[in-house]
Amino acid sequence: MKNHGCERGIRGVRHPSLQDGWDLAPNDPTGPRFRIEDIYPCVDCGRYPIKRIAGESVEIWADIFREGHDVLAAALIWRNESSPDWLREPMTLFGNDRWHGRFTPPEPGRYVFAIEAWTDQYATWRKEYLLKQEAGQDVSLVAREGHELILDLTPQTREPRLVVEAAARKFAETEDAAVLLDEVLAAAIEKTDNRPDLTRSHLMPLLAERERARAGAWYEMIPRSQGRIPGKHGTFQDCIARVPEIADLGFDVLYFTPIHPIGHTNRKGKNNSLRAEPGDPGSFYAMGSEAGGHDAVHPELGTLDDFRRLVDVCRQHNMEIALDFAVQCSPDHPWLKEHPEWFKTRPDGSIKYAENPPKKYEDIVNPDFTCADGIALWASLRDVILFWCKQGVRIFRVDNPHTKPFPFWEWLMREVRTHYPDAIFLSEAFTRPKVMKALAKIGFSQSYTYFTWRTTKHELQEYLSEITSHPERDYFRPNFFPTTPDILPIELQAGETWKFKSRAALAALLSSNYGIYNGFELIEHEPLPGREEYINSDKYEIKVRDWNKPGNIKDFLKRLNTIRRQNPALLQTSGLRFLQVDNDNVTGFLKESVHKDNAVACAISFAGYPQEFWLHFGAEQIGPEKEQHGVRLIENLVTGERHMLEWGGIRLRIDPSDPVLIFRCYP
Amino acid sequence: MKNHGCERGIRGVRHPSLQDGWDLAPNDPTGPRFRIEDIYPCVDCGRYPIKRIAGESVEIWADIFREGHDVLAAALIWRNESSPDWLREPMTLFGNDRWHGRFTPPEPGRYVFAIEAWTDQYATWRKEYLLKQEAGQDVSLVAREGHELILDLTPQTREPRLVVEAAARKFAETEDAAVLLDEVLAAAIEKTDNRPDLTRSHLMPLLAERERARAGAWYEMIPRSQGRIPGKHGTFQDCIARVPEIADLGFDVLYFTPIHPIGHTNRKGKNNSLRAEPGDPGSFYAMGSEAGGHDAVHPELGTLDDFRRLVDVCRQHNMEIALDFAVQCSPDHPWLKEHPEWFKTRPDGSIKYAENPPKKYEDIVNPDFTCADGIALWASLRDVILFWCKQGVRIFRVDNPHTKPFPFWEWLMREVRTHYPDAIFLSEAFTRPKVMKALAKIGFSQSYTYFTWRTTKHELQEYLSEITSHPERDYFRPNFFPTTPDILPIELQAGETWKFKSRAALAALLSSNYGIYNGFELIEHEPLPGREEYINSDKYEIKVRDWNKPGNIKDFLKRLNTIRRQNPALLQTSGLRFLQVDNDNVTGFLKESVHKDNAVACAISFAGYPQEFWLHFGAEQIGPEKEQHGVRLIENLVTGERHMLEWGGIRLRIDPSDPVLIFRCYP
Repeated sequence: MKNHGCERGIRGVRHPSLQDGWDLAPNDPTGPRFRIEDIYPCVDCGRYPIKRIAGESVEIWADIFREGHDVLAAALIWRNESSPDWLREPMTLFGNDRWHGRFTPPEPGRYVFAIEAWTDQYATWRKEYLLKQEAGQDVSLVAREGHELILDLTPQTREPRLVVEAAARKFAETEDAAVLLDEVLAAAIEKTDNRPDLTRSHLMPLLAERERARAGAWYEMIPRSQGRIPGKHGTFQDCIARVPEIADLGFDVLYFTPIHPIGHTNRKGKNNSLRAEPGDPGSFYAMGSEAGGHDAVHPELGTLDDFRRLVDVCRQHNMEIALDFAVQCSPDHPWLKEHPEWFKTRPDGSIKYAENPPKKYEDIVNPDFTCADGIALWASLRDVILFWCKQGVRIFRVDNPHTKPFPFWEWLMREVRTHYPDAIFLSEAFTRPKVMKALAKIGFSQSYTYFTWRTTKHELQEYLSEITSHPERDYFRPNFFPTTPDILPIELQAGETWKFKSRAALAALLSSNYGIYNGFELIEHEPLPGREEYINSDKYEIKVRDWNKPGNIKDFLKRLNTIRRQNPALLQTSGLRFLQVDNDNVTGFLKESVHKDNAVACAISFAGYPQEFWLHFGAEQIGPEKEQHGVRLIENLVTGERHMLEWGGIRLRIDPSDPVLIFRCYP
Repeated sequence: MKNHGCERGIRGVRHPSLQDGWDLAPNDPTGPRFRIEDIYPCVDCGRYPIKRIAGESVEIWADIFREGHDVLAAALIWRNESSPDWLREPMTLFGNDRWHGRFTPPEPGRYVFAIEAWTDQYATWRKEYLLKQEAGQDVSLVAREGHELILDLTPQTREPRLVVEAAARKFAETEDAAVLLDEVLAAAIEKTDNRPDLTRSHLMPLLAERERARAGAWYEMIPRSQGRIPGKHGTFQDCIARVPEIADLGFDVLYFTPIHPIGHTNRKGKNNSLRAEPGDPGSFYAMGSEAGGHDAVHPELGTLDDFRRLVDVCRQHNMEIALDFAVQCSPDHPWLKEHPEWFKTRPDGSIKYAENPPKKYEDIVNPDFTCADGIALWASLRDVILFWCKQGVRIFRVDNPHTKPFPFWEWLMREVRTHYPDAIFLSEAFTRPKVMKALAKIGFSQSYTYFTWRTTKHELQEYLSEITSHPERDYFRPNFFPTTPDILPIELQAGETWKFKSRAALAALLSSNYGIYNGFELIEHEPLPGREEYINSDKYEIKVRDWNKPGNIKDFLKRLNTIRRQNPALLQTSGLRFLQVDNDNVTGFLKESVHKDNAVACAISFAGYPQEFWLHFGAEQIGPEKEQHGVRLIENLVTGERHMLEWGGIRLRIDPSDPVLIFRCYP
């Protein structure tokens, strides 16, 4: 079949844009013949990348069709964004014009994929020939058409070309259609690239990250509070001393609040008071002093060498460091002298401190992202991240990203990942849901969430259903913190141990990324009166704690972390199904690993007194795609007890001393 | 606030495409600051137009936000695609970053719309000033910042400029902040276009059509079967004679199967037999002979003048003509001689007749859309439609569009609508669902559906739910036919009058576009044995019918059409809600007009014996947005009886002699 469109090569499906609207829709006979629609997974039509883990298969689906009844073929093409060469995987028809293919990005990085579709002219001819032959119709002309078709083929490689040419010659001599139906010929033709109506979809982006982006247990530490002598500023050395203990509890990420020099001007005192007393250390979020800015360490913590030693010690304990990245500066930050043009001047010549009227943050000023020298400001902030990457840090918790322009973050993370594809970014935005999701779309690996304020069974199930559905599950990875230095939720202010355990279990078992803030394990719970904040917060003062204080829940946390590590089902979030529980004080859910080789069921209590309930597995299936089964046997991962399910469910009891049950599930 | 991005003018949100992938995502400080997401309604990210009716308000929603807490503003901009000038409507924040706006396309045509968002700098300043003032903070510097802000404004028009300049002068003299907070100044500032961070969304297409595209009752007529003398070929004059009767039945569209000259070569005989007997008229789908092609009329029907007279008579009776557009040609079509290059030649020099192996259609050949001269072929087919538009036809039922390339139809309908924006196209594709939907996306006003084979309550409710949900409801308009010349479903082959009535009622009341094929009103029901086709179909022979044959259901159809015309609720399809009915043999549903001033409830029986049931309105609300109420009173539109609902429902009975109940609903 001749098609003059073939000189044109690949014809893409155009998407509308400002310049290229629908009035420029395909309008000539060589326009893209195929529809390639509803590509899944996909975030905002491909404007933002889907997120996956390197080394794991990415399943792609699309509707692919054109007019008529010809035999079609399709391929999934993909490449690392930096590579010029496409790799190809076949796609197969699943049914109802829906096609399926998969590929595996081998390493962290940015990838693009697209779908190509074309008419399989030879298969179409073959189908016609066989249908007519079967119906007893005269097929001699059809055979000659098949001959014309293979004469038009021009395989690029030698071997298929020889096969095709030989078949063409042989048919010319014998007029024997069997020559054209030969399987060897069919295989040779499959290797030709005679695809005059090839249509390529638009490109779809994918961000492949390493496993830590999907799963990690975080321990948030205020480094200056890790000392052992009351009143004395903790050091990196003190932090190093704590690493074995924290590693033993099973944490993967040791996350430090800012470690940079702290300003003096308008330094905050205890409990965020406006005037610091002599000796008050100030808020570590007021970054920058004569000792340096974002790429310096606070002298009282130690030296950069000390910090690098800390990074090494963590690595030896299979933990890694996460650093806090906050854009704001103390009025004493070197940038104010070096780059006054980055800061907006008020009519009296002063620089405006940060505020969210009527709230004031007198000890910090924010650079002005709309300043004329914005590009230099962006580059300097990027260089801060690159500096800490060079010190061995790969995880950054970004403070308040929702108050800086989205294009800045999108650019910054792209830049950093170009050099360090294994960099991970956590978005600390507790703000409007659309904004939090937009930050995830533009590249944050993980996001803080509303978990902190979702305290009932119904609220949590609704919230988890939202963030584990498509498209959220394809770009938004939650990281659940029961408390943070800024937030002590009302829920925990009574200091009930069972509730701390319940909240930790909900965080650790519902979300594959979760974290606690130091002191949580000690049931610290005293608020500023009437506020959801800690009293005497170590944001403004130096604390020394007894990390083995009686009543701590370290054993409980260790058990959670151990079970997480042993059960890949718990190391991902989106494979979550809530189970039916006939008790509003208990939530039950089932999680399954990406490879479908591990399934775990959990029941967690929301009450401070014993709960009895039925946990129903209903029709939920576990196991690999082609051999799924209902759950029949469950094994308590703490006691080792095994239970056969009765009628798909089981009667259970939870005691507040240990408000969580975790079971391995078997078919 | 200065922003050097302002020289750049409007910055659009780019969508990825083949050349412009995500690796070209915004990467500098002047990139679009706003996110404009989840624009609704929208079909395939804006690749295809949403469909609306000219003169009716189009409601647009979008998520609009940027970083931080400044006061934002947004506008909906729109224009006819052919107009260079944008029109503007304000958008208002609904909540959770979701904004709303509306515009009304005044006449049929293609429109584009987009959303613009920007920071309202003055409102942001004003908010800051008032918040600080309220908190008792010193606001003198803030006032001076407000002064700087208005000094930067450069209103384009005289009056606002004078107001702004006067205020700036007055503040300079008095330092009185009240000057800056003045409402007159605020109004003047709203008229400036100082919008340095203006972001425009990508363009979204909209196809506005006239009301007939959304609602019409079609009567399908085979013109040669409208004569009164057995054996004699019917004429346009015979058709004219029938117009008053059909108009009196309340039909809006008189749809003719092809009226073109019929070929002789391989002419089909009765019941699709391979050989025609002398006198057999042949299939009217074998178009073209020495008498002409697609732009000629079959001589036995009359002349083009007769046809134009028919068009006029229809218009006088408030009906319009729909013509059948089929691409194929009889081997005797003039194009085969004039444009042999449009037809594919087989190795023996012959032209392949149409087939879908092993099925053969010996009396027609299909032009080859992939031929080298494809553009000329496309243009000729377009000219056929334009020719009939010139004769006063504006509705085209397109035969088998799914076997011709999608880009061709998209182009053809665009071309025709450029000249005749009121042209309506009905897609006759009974094929795979994705293909049927794709045809609707590329511009068909209406589509044939699976209605013909959806015969149970459950099947119909499921199917209607599918096609009346977003996004289908925004581009796919069903046209329900209980039978067609090609299809006599098994369901109707027993010839039960109650079932013909039930199917007609389902078609006419569920879908605002519906149609019957002549003979349906006479309960014609004899099939080819074992097939879903009519025996002795007038596709292959001339018929004469007694249009007033005893047992006909014309009165029933007239009543349906009358009630439809009197109730705008029935003249649209997507405002459909199924009601709860405790009887699987009865479906109940509620429809409401676009303007919310008319609500109708229907109950239709699927059984040939009396049915009793409760029709429950539950919590369904009717009425305009701000004063919605539950249904309390219903009025039978046939008997005039009125019933108060008890507990939101009513006990009803349907008799098979009249298997449908239709009620006007009142709050």
